[in-house]
Amino acid sequence: MLLYNSQVSGNCYKVRLLFAHLAIEYDRLEMDVVDRSNRREVLGELNPALRVPTLVLDDGRSLGESNAIIFHFAEGTQYLPEDSFERAQVLQWLFYEQYSHEPNIAVARFWALFDVSPPSSADHELKMKAGRAALQAMDAHLTDRPYFVGERYTIADIALYAYTHVAPEGGFELEPYPAIRAWLQRVMGQPGHVPITA
Amino acid sequence: MLLYNSQVSGNCYKVRLLFAHLAIEYDRLEMDVVDRSNRREVLGELNPALRVPTLVLDDGRSLGESNAIIFHFAEGTQYLPEDSFERAQVLQWLFYEQYSHEPNIAVARFWALFDVSPPSSADHELKMKAGRAALQAMDAHLTDRPYFVGERYTIADIALYAYTHVAPEGGFELEPYPAIRAWLQRVMGQPGHVPITA
Repeated sequence: MLLYNSQVSGNCYKVRLLFAHLAIEYDRLEMDVVDRSNRREVLGELNPALRVPTLVLDDGRSLGESNAIIFHFAEGTQYLPEDSFERAQVLQWLFYEQYSHEPNIAVARFWALFDVSPPSSADHELKMKAGRAALQAMDAHLTDRPYFVGERYTIADIALYAYTHVAPEGGFELEPYPAIRAWLQRVMGQPGHVPITA
Repeated sequence: MLLYNSQVSGNCYKVRLLFAHLAIEYDRLEMDVVDRSNRREVLGELNPALRVPTLVLDDGRSLGESNAIIFHFAEGTQYLPEDSFERAQVLQWLFYEQYSHEPNIAVARFWALFDVSPPSSADHELKMKAGRAALQAMDAHLTDRPYFVGERYTIADIALYAYTHVAPEGGFELEPYPAIRAWLQRVMGQPGHVPITA
């Protein structure tokens, strides 16, 4: 399989981390996340969102959206519960991650890492506020649970770990969230864990 | 079951539409989408995102995120494919909807319907541009397909129909997208279809 990848992208890291846990082999093609001028040419037929990660299977079929990719490859493994309601809870957190977490925390990090100007200072402040609210909700949920769903490590943890552990790069302090900090350690201690740089 | 609902919300409409197709009965509790001051009090224990739809099952367990709810209830029905890769494609479009479509089209519609000021005019213009790009990608995909996945009506269509059919309320013209307009008619013709006002 071929992964259209960005090494700095937390969304791509979710796929790389699950594939490391599952010992799935694949090739990578690195895409620029600042100069996106070749996106339509390279990804136009593969992913309507023109984003990374995009995965091309050995039979040529392609799949986009990080959380769709990890859900697909987690099916039938220990990283996705078999119970129907627990699977729905995993999906709840995957959608939470893409709607309430990533658009704030990942985007603020992107602006900071690549020195990109936000549309307005009001927009930047809104993203910081919404990002802190997303972290607060995670911290509250983790206060009496080791992992997000079903008391074990699943793709819900993989998806939320991706941008949470690098949130300080976007200006988000993790010191106010002790339950998140303890959970980050548990995630890093999983067999087969690899860092975002791997 | 009890659905914390907003009649105007396309996200809530997805759940109501699938439940209508499946003849699932439930109660509704209407939430204000402008004055959200009671959200933590009412939804704090039920949904970390404090958003509607939130569904409370008869056994008291709760589930948030519209697309997680419809995925859960579509499992084992004609509205979600059994094939693993087609299910992944459905998820791809569900995540596309929540990341590339809803945050632009639904938010611009919300601003217009409730006379809410965007954070900045730059932000408003970015949302209009990104919303049009989302519609363009949908139109291209639908040009040679009747539905989003597997040539039949699934929850991918339900999720994308919800805010697309009311996109003109947010200032998005649908005239440039003939494949979308034909698809809207096919969706409305499904047995058991109900409008967003139902």
